[in-house]
Amino acid sequence: MSERKYNFSAGPCTLPLEVLEEAQQELVDYHGAGMSLIEMSHRGAHFQAVAGEAAALAMEIFQAPEQFSVLFIQGGATLQFAMLPMNFLHTGQQGGYVNSGAWAGGAIADGAAHGRIYTAWDGADDHYTRMPADHEIRLRDDTRYLHITTNETIGGIRFPHWPEVEVPLIGDVSSEYMARPIPWERFDLVYGGAQKNLGPSGMAVVFVRKSVLENSNRDLARYLRYDIHEAGGSMFNTPPVFPIYLFGKVLKWMKKQGGLAVMERRAAEKSGALYHAIEQSGGYYNCPVERACRSHMNVVFRLPSEALEKKFLSECEQAGLMNLKGHRSVGGCRASIYNAMPAEGVAALVDFMAHFQAASG
Amino acid sequence: MSERKYNFSAGPCTLPLEVLEEAQQELVDYHGAGMSLIEMSHRGAHFQAVAGEAAALAMEIFQAPEQFSVLFIQGGATLQFAMLPMNFLHTGQQGGYVNSGAWAGGAIADGAAHGRIYTAWDGADDHYTRMPADHEIRLRDDTRYLHITTNETIGGIRFPHWPEVEVPLIGDVSSEYMARPIPWERFDLVYGGAQKNLGPSGMAVVFVRKSVLENSNRDLARYLRYDIHEAGGSMFNTPPVFPIYLFGKVLKWMKKQGGLAVMERRAAEKSGALYHAIEQSGGYYNCPVERACRSHMNVVFRLPSEALEKKFLSECEQAGLMNLKGHRSVGGCRASIYNAMPAEGVAALVDFMAHFQAASG
Repeated sequence: MSERKYNFSAGPCTLPLEVLEEAQQELVDYHGAGMSLIEMSHRGAHFQAVAGEAAALAMEIFQAPEQFSVLFIQGGATLQFAMLPMNFLHTGQQGGYVNSGAWAGGAIADGAAHGRIYTAWDGADDHYTRMPADHEIRLRDDTRYLHITTNETIGGIRFPHWPEVEVPLIGDVSSEYMARPIPWERFDLVYGGAQKNLGPSGMAVVFVRKSVLENSNRDLARYLRYDIHEAGGSMFNTPPVFPIYLFGKVLKWMKKQGGLAVMERRAAEKSGALYHAIEQSGGYYNCPVERACRSHMNVVFRLPSEALEKKFLSECEQAGLMNLKGHRSVGGCRASIYNAMPAEGVAALVDFMAHFQAASG
Repeated sequence: MSERKYNFSAGPCTLPLEVLEEAQQELVDYHGAGMSLIEMSHRGAHFQAVAGEAAALAMEIFQAPEQFSVLFIQGGATLQFAMLPMNFLHTGQQGGYVNSGAWAGGAIADGAAHGRIYTAWDGADDHYTRMPADHEIRLRDDTRYLHITTNETIGGIRFPHWPEVEVPLIGDVSSEYMARPIPWERFDLVYGGAQKNLGPSGMAVVFVRKSVLENSNRDLARYLRYDIHEAGGSMFNTPPVFPIYLFGKVLKWMKKQGGLAVMERRAAEKSGALYHAIEQSGGYYNCPVERACRSHMNVVFRLPSEALEKKFLSECEQAGLMNLKGHRSVGGCRASIYNAMPAEGVAALVDFMAHFQAASG
């Protein structure tokens, strides 16, 4: 076995080592059953226990009130972009969207194919380097919900405070899932892809306020209906067994670490150390994001030239600091430091950044 | 490690042991990369190689002509039920469906929410114990495609021959995927959930004729569009990494075993042994399915009473023959004997059936 690297990938991304080791141990013969969990019927006792525990832990750790249900739906956050207007916009209603960057843009483009939606605030003029203040968000009449992307994985921005508006919020929290508490009373639905803070790729985890399912649209295929997923306990059809199983293990790890408050504090410390290193570099490293809106999960930064960025990324990999390249649409560097990234990984990156700057000076 | 059981589950279901053992070996540290494959970016070299090899092997083993592309789409066969009419039915067109049982019924109900569809043949009068002859299938004008469920997992029936009609076929082959050759020239699209012959749950594998994507519907969210999945090589968004990875390993196993012809022969032998045992039991075991339409994958049978069935199932489990209970909607017994079920498992079941009958006589 080779030495474990520090993996700053934006997703799929680093997972807790003990989760991987436990899954490895159990993969061929699950708890002495004479078969793997991934070979078992999803309606059998073993997987029912796994999925039930994962759902209960998700509610507990994310501090979701009992008015919500948690659902596991395949298709990632991207399928949710379609399902939201399909389920929630009735004739005469529209959905407002905050356009905060690449992922919000996807939610808007996909949503527009299945409902009447509009942009309630657009960050394009600021090159998506900040989030709006509440008074900048312009809601139209008959707005059913305001959709926000609470953290933009590519732009490296997040809402520093939760918007307080006159309609329910729907939040894509993909890249900061279970990294800070949510003001549940303002939300009708919270969703995100699992493949960042929650486990491997292959599903979205959706928290939905149960009361809004009472009059959600019914003239849809079953897979596209939240009420059907909810009534079936996410098992009206065959669920994504392995992602749910790993999700449960990640949740147990989070609970053992101390839960949401500890995740939030660690994220502030890890991102704080990186932003501090950037600030202290005298402009050698530069983060374009407005200070108050800087993400605690995805730290984006530039070097003085693309040539230096290329050299930096190459030498990082030699030093075991992997996948620091920015998204192909924006370039530069990005350190994704999700819940499972140890503080030691961030410290190693901070050290390397100082070393690289000194060596190139 | 406990002794490996024979698992007759209808899906998720038994997988080749060597596939599980290889995946276990690689789970924490993939090929010396210092991280797990499920932690890696799907756009990185490791996973690109894994997915590319899986797609190429899928085309090769299933003998798909180059006019087709293979896609990996989350949501199982069930999401496909919605996507088919969404993508392929234009105004004025309709889809014909053969109603052969539970799964066809799902395709019809879900499809009707997103397009104009009708039942071209209905097996209800025969209690879904057979498939139609070609002349029984009634196509209407403006029919874009005929949808068939080539093997009904719950009813235990399959098409003994492939329908030859005047419109393109779309086939749900979930429960007999890569278990017999397909007459590709008759099909526009072939699909199925992975969690039977192909690997763990978490995606559908879709073979689509590329030319039909040129004028498929575009006014849909990206996740619901086949052309978008095809153009992005099934990676326009984060794909289901672990299911694709295991699928590739299952395909390698199939190739090593001898490929499709060997799978087809073994399925005939294994199901033949079971149906023979049923026939030889003098009516103690009874299969309700018309002989020519009996599935080679899902062998359904009844015992003289529900009490005996309960005893039979319970004693089977004690003998290491697991998950033989029929679907909850129909009761009875069902032996799902997918590609990865060894002949020894079927032989053990045949022996046990004789033993049980003798002991109860």
